Amino acid sequence: MNYFLFAFVLAGFSAYAQPAFQVVPLGVKGGVDESNLSAYALAASGTQDYVCLDAGTLHTGIRAAIKKKVWKGDATAFLRKHVKGYLISHPHYDHANGLITNSPDDSAKYIYGIESCLSVLKEKHFSWKSWANFGNEGEAPTLNKYTYQTLVPGKEVPLHNTPLFVTPFVLSHVSPTESTAFLVRSGDSYLLYLGDTGCDRLEKSDKLMQLWTAIAPLIQTKKLKAVFIEVSFANEQPDNSLFGHLTPNLLKEELSVLEKLTGAGQLKNLNVVITHMKPLGNREETIRKQIASGNTLSVNFIFPQQGKALTF
Amino acid sequence: MNYFLFAFVLAGFSAYAQPAFQVVPLGVKGGVDESNLSAYALAASGTQDYVCLDAGTLHTGIRAAIKKKVWKGDATAFLRKHVKGYLISHPHYDHANGLITNSPDDSAKYIYGIESCLSVLKEKHFSWKSWANFGNEGEAPTLNKYTYQTLVPGKEVPLHNTPLFVTPFVLSHVSPTESTAFLVRSGDSYLLYLGDTGCDRLEKSDKLMQLWTAIAPLIQTKKLKAVFIEVSFANEQPDNSLFGHLTPNLLKEELSVLEKLTGAGQLKNLNVVITHMKPLGNREETIRKQIASGNTLSVNFIFPQQGKALTF
Repeated sequence: MNYFLFAFVLAGFSAYAQPAFQVVPLGVKGGVDESNLSAYALAASGTQDYVCLDAGTLHTGIRAAIKKKVWKGDATAFLRKHVKGYLISHPHYDHANGLITNSPDDSAKYIYGIESCLSVLKEKHFSWKSWANFGNEGEAPTLNKYTYQTLVPGKEVPLHNTPLFVTPFVLSHVSPTESTAFLVRSGDSYLLYLGDTGCDRLEKSDKLMQLWTAIAPLIQTKKLKAVFIEVSFANEQPDNSLFGHLTPNLLKEELSVLEKLTGAGQLKNLNVVITHMKPLGNREETIRKQIASGNTLSVNFIFPQQGKALTF
Repeated sequence: MNYFLFAFVLAGFSAYAQPAFQVVPLGVKGGVDESNLSAYALAASGTQDYVCLDAGTLHTGIRAAIKKKVWKGDATAFLRKHVKGYLISHPHYDHANGLITNSPDDSAKYIYGIESCLSVLKEKHFSWKSWANFGNEGEAPTLNKYTYQTLVPGKEVPLHNTPLFVTPFVLSHVSPTESTAFLVRSGDSYLLYLGDTGCDRLEKSDKLMQLWTAIAPLIQTKKLKAVFIEVSFANEQPDNSLFGHLTPNLLKEELSVLEKLTGAGQLKNLNVVITHMKPLGNREETIRKQIASGNTLSVNFIFPQQGKALTF
């Protein structure tokens, strides 16, 4: 093997082995525990320019990552310097508490969301009556620390001050509440994060079908590196008490729909990160067992931990 | 000493030594750290029937108290069984996050506040757009888990399912935002908790003067067992960046006003619990030093810790 061929093979191997994304979970739970609510810091590999996918818990999560030596320094300083924007899937507090709580000491950055989400942030969260208006829109006076950028479903836009791009998709979280899935791109690699969502059958919706149809080609071409999706309740939760959430069985029902679109066997080893388990008694342990049981699609299920980095 | 005299002396000593209140801080900070925001569980001594003075962090604080063996069992079960109501000083999120986050798994209970506070909880917090409406008023449908009880300034009312009573006083937290001080009574003993407040001089207000005038007789008669009051910033904070908060110097300025009303030396050994320090760099340590320095009134300053019980 001559030198050039050797270098070429090395470069090819390197490109294959190199992960495209780093994700640091800042909060992984779907309720109750104020110190650990949905928030995932995402960066293109090799950069320290993160966006947060939801912002339920920020400070406590950054502290956890520093304790685990994933990051270093002071938590507030890290947030100010390295988190370049927030993508909020929907405005429920367990996805926005950290953003609100940290806003007085945060630096100027962007908040991304679909129109129905941003309008609630402006009307309810940063409303002066409930909290100072750190945004650039909503009730006057606006403090203009945060710049809202309205995302249009299906349309890709760049995420400022990062090499990343995002395409939003609308999800159904008990009509009329809309939630959002964010398809994030880095170069030719993709990562999909879903906010809270019910399954199409029970939501009487085709939103997940639309999303699965859009991403199926990315699975077939191995460009989709991971899917973050919620499983809030265990299988025992009655259908009429799901409040727009998934169970292990409902997740598998939706993954089967996706597999039909991609072709048999195409979901094998797909990284599926389980988010938003709602703590109550031993429910989280039950969900873990129910997810692992009967994994006929051979998906690679991952249970994230606060402050522990994942690469894809 | 005959038996009856001995028993009488013992009983008298016991009555003197017996604290009137137990307070378990569930969260002690004034921002940034989602796991440790203002919330103080208060019970009459000898009971396990608590009310929460503000509700910034609940679950994480209860877990901390269980870890310290102050309480036992499961945090959510404890909240459901032993916390009988919430007294919310004002509706800013750092005082309400825990209430919102825990509401889906909470039991039925009361939320107490002055009208301006409760109206924001109904309009902004439990509004369906931002969170399900677990209250008994506000946007339909009301889930009726929480019953709002509007407090009238200066008027004492009982706190349901506890032996406690409360009298609210309005505070100024940058006009037009009202905050509240809660004067809680157990038998003939009192404890005063202030929500966020600026000093009268800078707020151009007489609200603290009114409060000090009301409680001065309780200090003179030694019935007031403790004052919980905020010091959010260090002395270096410019007056125009206080956002309706106190510094060590401004606290001492207000305590001097109070001492003039009670008479010289009357504040000696008064328990003053410092709440709501806003973390940033080494600010908390600076505040502690500034509070301790030049304590000419010989007040007993206390710095609460999450999950560590205090008795008064």
